[in-house]
Amino acid sequence: MNNNPVGVFDSGLGGLTILKSLEKYFPNESFIYFGDTGRVPYGNKSQKTIINYSTEISRFLLKKNVKLIVVACNTSSALALKTLKSIMPIPVFGVIEPSVFFTEKSYPSSEKIAVIGTSSTISSKAYLEQFKILKSKKTIIEKACPLFVPLIEEGITDGEIAENVVKYYLKTFKKKDIKTFVLGCTHYPIIKPALYKYLGNNVNLITSCSRLSVELNEYMLKNNCLSSKKKTETIFYVTDLPNKFSKLGSRFLGKNLKNINYIKTINEY
Amino acid sequence: MNNNPVGVFDSGLGGLTILKSLEKYFPNESFIYFGDTGRVPYGNKSQKTIINYSTEISRFLLKKNVKLIVVACNTSSALALKTLKSIMPIPVFGVIEPSVFFTEKSYPSSEKIAVIGTSSTISSKAYLEQFKILKSKKTIIEKACPLFVPLIEEGITDGEIAENVVKYYLKTFKKKDIKTFVLGCTHYPIIKPALYKYLGNNVNLITSCSRLSVELNEYMLKNNCLSSKKKTETIFYVTDLPNKFSKLGSRFLGKNLKNINYIKTINEY
Repeated sequence: MNNNPVGVFDSGLGGLTILKSLEKYFPNESFIYFGDTGRVPYGNKSQKTIINYSTEISRFLLKKNVKLIVVACNTSSALALKTLKSIMPIPVFGVIEPSVFFTEKSYPSSEKIAVIGTSSTISSKAYLEQFKILKSKKTIIEKACPLFVPLIEEGITDGEIAENVVKYYLKTFKKKDIKTFVLGCTHYPIIKPALYKYLGNNVNLITSCSRLSVELNEYMLKNNCLSSKKKTETIFYVTDLPNKFSKLGSRFLGKNLKNINYIKTINEY
Repeated sequence: MNNNPVGVFDSGLGGLTILKSLEKYFPNESFIYFGDTGRVPYGNKSQKTIINYSTEISRFLLKKNVKLIVVACNTSSALALKTLKSIMPIPVFGVIEPSVFFTEKSYPSSEKIAVIGTSSTISSKAYLEQFKILKSKKTIIEKACPLFVPLIEEGITDGEIAENVVKYYLKTFKKKDIKTFVLGCTHYPIIKPALYKYLGNNVNLITSCSRLSVELNEYMLKNNCLSSKKKTETIFYVTDLPNKFSKLGSRFLGKNLKNINYIKTINEY
């Protein structure tokens, strides 16, 4: 047993969709969530910078005595996970490996899979690599959709503009009649309505939450580090705009956020 | 005479539109340009964070022996200029004051003026304050257009999506038959075609370059600190993605960029 909290981090708000699924799956666990709102977005930044930021945050969470870290950001999972796993003294989990495993096993008859994400995630080829590790015979077609995050953060998740932007990025997939999409960004579940409207209700939209909780549970069972009792409500740390985080965050988390702490720079802590 | 360079900074690429006009107006001056691409954008961040970042950059430029600093970012001019002026031992110029002066003097018969910019610039009310200082009798109507910057950075500056987004933000101005627009963000000159298409060719689009060079020239003449001879081509410093900066920057500057230096964090220098 280990009643220490689980650390979860993201560049900003998107990771709250992951936190939501973790809180539901693990009612006995306590969580610390870190949103790097002072340097958001990560999706158009370089690997060097993303490793730098992700390492700072992981060290901060370590000082808060988390027992393991969930990188609830696809860009960071794509570009910094290997480094974090090699330098951190506690286990680190990303969101790419579980969703690729889920896709491979759950849709055996889908020959073609579309993966959509931020520019940095897609150019990292991290999803392709995971499919290769599983010796997948599927054809993986990737596409960066850099306008989805700003649209979602502006609250434009349906209507003409959202639909046009969806069409702009996904028309080639529709032409090729691809039916299975991996949403390689924790923001994207929020625009599912516009995606279904354009692609049709019969497509499979696979989110980053898929199977993550199952893998985490397996790990914690095996290593005897599940918590016996929730110690605290989730504590949040953000590097900017705690009020905006609180307001928009409730949309992602589906409930009001408490315990939000603003910190100026990570290194001072 | 003072042959030291002029420092210019922005959150990223947008300030290159200002640099372009300065280079043209001052052929004898040398420039150092700082683009904070590792923390871009500033337009949705808080005053505290923007002051923090702008101060770090100004101190960096000071160590490079610049004789004065141009804050070529409207968000930073709106939120950090007062602080920078009070703490820096060299003169600091923003982009808001000159363009408001220009608007007030050049369009005396325009009763209603629209100011568009990032969320942080608009919520700062910095433009309103400048019009007040000039005892303006104009009605100033402000509107944040947070999707313009991501659209421009994605290269979508005309066509259906750009036009729909322009319409989304500016339809109330069109209804009110407003003809004079202050473009309160250094990115916005890039989408002038879509703005003219929606608003009509007879509108006045006032950029942040307006009158800045004139004011700078007056100051340097008065204080005898114009340069007698250009010492070096412009030197660039960026906190991320020097290659992308080089590629996209040529679109803003209208020529190829040389001398681009990447720095990991500002404080280490």
